Amino acid sequence: MRSSTKDSTSHSGQIPGSVGVVAPVIHHFEQPLELTSGAVLPAYDLIYETYGELNADRSNAILICHALSGDHHVAGYHRNDDGTVSTKAGWWDNMVGPGKPFDTDRFFVVGLNNLGGCGGSSGPSSMNPATGRLYGPDFPLVTVSDWVQSQARLADVLGIEQFAAIIGGSLGGMQAMQWAVDFPDRVRHAVVVAAAPKLSAQNIAFSEVARQSIRSDPDFHDGRYFEHDTVPKRGLRVARMLGHITYLSDEHLGEKFGRQMREGQFSFDYTVEFQIESYLNYQGDNFSTRFDANTYLLMTKALDYFDPAAAHDDRLSAWLSRAKADFMVASFTSDWRFSPSRSREIVKALHDNNLNVSYAEIESKEGHDSFLLEIDAYQDLMRAYLNRVAAEFGQ
Amino acid sequence: MRSSTKDSTSHSGQIPGSVGVVAPVIHHFEQPLELTSGAVLPAYDLIYETYGELNADRSNAILICHALSGDHHVAGYHRNDDGTVSTKAGWWDNMVGPGKPFDTDRFFVVGLNNLGGCGGSSGPSSMNPATGRLYGPDFPLVTVSDWVQSQARLADVLGIEQFAAIIGGSLGGMQAMQWAVDFPDRVRHAVVVAAAPKLSAQNIAFSEVARQSIRSDPDFHDGRYFEHDTVPKRGLRVARMLGHITYLSDEHLGEKFGRQMREGQFSFDYTVEFQIESYLNYQGDNFSTRFDANTYLLMTKALDYFDPAAAHDDRLSAWLSRAKADFMVASFTSDWRFSPSRSREIVKALHDNNLNVSYAEIESKEGHDSFLLEIDAYQDLMRAYLNRVAAEFGQ
Repeated sequence: MRSSTKDSTSHSGQIPGSVGVVAPVIHHFEQPLELTSGAVLPAYDLIYETYGELNADRSNAILICHALSGDHHVAGYHRNDDGTVSTKAGWWDNMVGPGKPFDTDRFFVVGLNNLGGCGGSSGPSSMNPATGRLYGPDFPLVTVSDWVQSQARLADVLGIEQFAAIIGGSLGGMQAMQWAVDFPDRVRHAVVVAAAPKLSAQNIAFSEVARQSIRSDPDFHDGRYFEHDTVPKRGLRVARMLGHITYLSDEHLGEKFGRQMREGQFSFDYTVEFQIESYLNYQGDNFSTRFDANTYLLMTKALDYFDPAAAHDDRLSAWLSRAKADFMVASFTSDWRFSPSRSREIVKALHDNNLNVSYAEIESKEGHDSFLLEIDAYQDLMRAYLNRVAAEFGQ
Repeated sequence: MRSSTKDSTSHSGQIPGSVGVVAPVIHHFEQPLELTSGAVLPAYDLIYETYGELNADRSNAILICHALSGDHHVAGYHRNDDGTVSTKAGWWDNMVGPGKPFDTDRFFVVGLNNLGGCGGSSGPSSMNPATGRLYGPDFPLVTVSDWVQSQARLADVLGIEQFAAIIGGSLGGMQAMQWAVDFPDRVRHAVVVAAAPKLSAQNIAFSEVARQSIRSDPDFHDGRYFEHDTVPKRGLRVARMLGHITYLSDEHLGEKFGRQMREGQFSFDYTVEFQIESYLNYQGDNFSTRFDANTYLLMTKALDYFDPAAAHDDRLSAWLSRAKADFMVASFTSDWRFSPSRSREIVKALHDNNLNVSYAEIESKEGHDSFLLEIDAYQDLMRAYLNRVAAEFGQ
């Protein structure tokens, strides 16, 4: 392998099942990228992390595609500026590590921040070389297809001709499907979790309310908030609170919070009365200080735009006809954002093409967010499937 | 009857099935009202409309209780300031009128704006006699129970000892239940449509996001926006957009809008791309110019607080044990805000008390909003039930 992101003073030996301390790598691409919109990115950066070792015949690579608010920091721990190790693990640390379902003793796992993100890849909050100012709202809108093109270039850089598996949940699952269609020879297995072939009107409606919340914040300044030394925290906060409701199930919220009050009795004023309110406000506050508003807008737009069957008279099967990968499709019973029926549409279209498809509808109470959580049946399923993937290259 | 709100130059003869042109009446109450919160309203106004004639033995009165954004203008048309007749009918005009399910040829129908509303009853946007300024955020929070107390006083003013029926959808249905418990001898029939015994954590979560959207609008000014010559339009707009999604079903949005684009192709910028976005933005714009933000907050709080079984160890049956009315409970198959299962909880608790209960689960695609719509099976059901009610007083 050409690059390792393992920290030279790794603590991996000290944290069982963890990839340990990791550091991201930035690759600068000079080759212009033509986007679906027609716009061209003359040059761009992608930030990524890798875990495990690429084997001699480069056959053991896994690409992890992130969802709306994810990034390249999939597993392990970063080192803080003061040299201490952060206590916050990567977003899919329960899945990626030595002995974990995506086993870094066997696989070479790659996570990257997508174009338009705010984790270090080129996006609205990075410098526009053409102007010397931050891109802000001038960063071009990107699509799932654009991401796949940029990820393929990163694979070239890493010397990976074919991924053993490309894996993603939600918007990440859409990328895994797109890979299988756009680069049929470069994906051996596509693992598509909690995804959908396209957003429904209700899905788009929630996206739009989140966007309006951000865009109508007076601190948004048409997206040039950095130039005004501010960020649209209020709007982003409400957008995230709303998103959070759609990521969880009614049942889960009921079990976790129900109608529990913060105090023993109502205060009959406009302060927060219920625990569920505190929880949402906390989530919103937290997110609004760490995530870029323009990136949030861009990511929701990429979700809205994804509808690959549209160019094939709404026949999903026709779009997937180019795919050669084996597929693992998984959904969660309590997911009302992308419900199991949406995954079954994908499964049917894959079957129509006589592709090898495994499908699992996993019992869970946590809604769409289940794909990020440590759920036994889910972990077992992923472990079993990845064992099968590993067996193909003799592991 | 003591008061008629029929316009002296009524057009009722000209609009078949309509109660015609109507005008509201305001009654000023001087008797202080002690609220659930412990606060006392020393005096207050209630604005109301009536349709039809109260019969000699005052046995044909129906009270219509409104939901979150409803008011006293239930049926017919108002006269504009310039003398022309408004083209906008009352919010339940499809249900109330001569020959309609709530037949004004047989019933005397009363609609009022609840305390805390913004339609003309005392509320945050009316004058606080104690200060000579608008109440704004100082208007006390009210509960469903408080509303019922104030409505009973209005019934006294109108000379109605017992209502033939008290009818409401959503939050209005909660009031109908509360009436049956608080004034068992004053309600002959309670008609509870698309309601729930209490809000779920998810319901409260949506309320809280709406509230945060309003409260974090810089134009909110802690509720004293009128003193700053502004209104928190942006926040109210987003709150309404969000509410709207929860009032409609995924299926209905899919059938009505799907992924229809506004233009033939994507613009790949942050303008509105889909019809569903236009629709929501239009609804939000419209609402934000006509509704008071403090009232919106207050109404969502009244919804959140409603949980009458809580004082009875969460036994809904125990709370309903005082009721004597016959009940008609109706729900809609596509309602995911207050789903049919929530109505069935009410039905079970009524059965536990050996009360006469009719229950109907009405097929509809329009979600929670179905209760406001002209749906044949729904109209037939209400018509049949109200025929039974009318038969009791010989109509």
